[in-house]
Amino acid sequence: MRYYTFGDEQPAVSPDEFFMNEALKEARQALKEDEIPIGAVVVCKGQIIGKGHNLTERLNDVSAHAEMQALTAAANYMGGKYLPECTLYVTMEPCVMCAGASYWFQIGRIVFGAYDVQRGFGRLNQTITHPKTLITGGIHENECAQLVKDFFKSKRK
Amino acid sequence: MRYYTFGDEQPAVSPDEFFMNEALKEARQALKEDEIPIGAVVVCKGQIIGKGHNLTERLNDVSAHAEMQALTAAANYMGGKYLPECTLYVTMEPCVMCAGASYWFQIGRIVFGAYDVQRGFGRLNQTITHPKTLITGGIHENECAQLVKDFFKSKRK
Repeated sequence: MRYYTFGDEQPAVSPDEFFMNEALKEARQALKEDEIPIGAVVVCKGQIIGKGHNLTERLNDVSAHAEMQALTAAANYMGGKYLPECTLYVTMEPCVMCAGASYWFQIGRIVFGAYDVQRGFGRLNQTITHPKTLITGGIHENECAQLVKDFFKSKRK
Repeated sequence: MRYYTFGDEQPAVSPDEFFMNEALKEARQALKEDEIPIGAVVVCKGQIIGKGHNLTERLNDVSAHAEMQALTAAANYMGGKYLPECTLYVTMEPCVMCAGASYWFQIGRIVFGAYDVQRGFGRLNQTITHPKTLITGGIHENECAQLVKDFFKSKRK
């Protein structure tokens, strides 16, 4: 099955890869703004309805994570509270706060890029996402991880 | 030891009781606005530097919890990112999202009123708050719990 072809020159990609690329665009935007390069989009029925990237520096707010921006933007767009038919694409495994937020939004699915062994919600041995939330990790894992690694490497110089 | 006396008519209260009363004022303000009556204040060196109450209805945002308002307000006030010398007083045991947020703010202490067995972060068997965060629960427990119980009872009528 082929999805999202862009003419002969571009390879076909799956929907998950396509939307993770959109989240990566947000992450690169964060990088331009000297923010930790993590990006997120929320997708409903094939359409992006919310996006965001890390804004902890600009807002001087350690809770201004990409997922929080994207989830609240999506709920705003929907004019409703819950997002059971939506998927959150985010370049890094969500932290406990963001996974906890996704519980309240009742997000249908979370797809993340790089694993975050230290601070990702997956380190917990109990489920903190909504019982109906499906989880997929590792989409464009290397590219998502490399962005963040390079960022912190450049900061340590 | 006596703290915070208000003349002969008022009984002396401990700092924790005093500031939980301030959080209760925020909870009652939420009730007036037909929001779930949960309130929070952040205190640094005896001074309230941030406060907030549940705004999920007004903002149509399921993540607009009292703690998130109070923590971001406090960090704004401090002009810094972290709150290691501050205490978060909140009328209800924080959920996983809010406890996860408190990790990023590196809050020094969390004092909560009513226990939330279903959705409180205490249901987890792993620590999700910052390793240095001290936790106290049950301050003005009955009053804090009753506010929320009465609210939901009135909604079911």
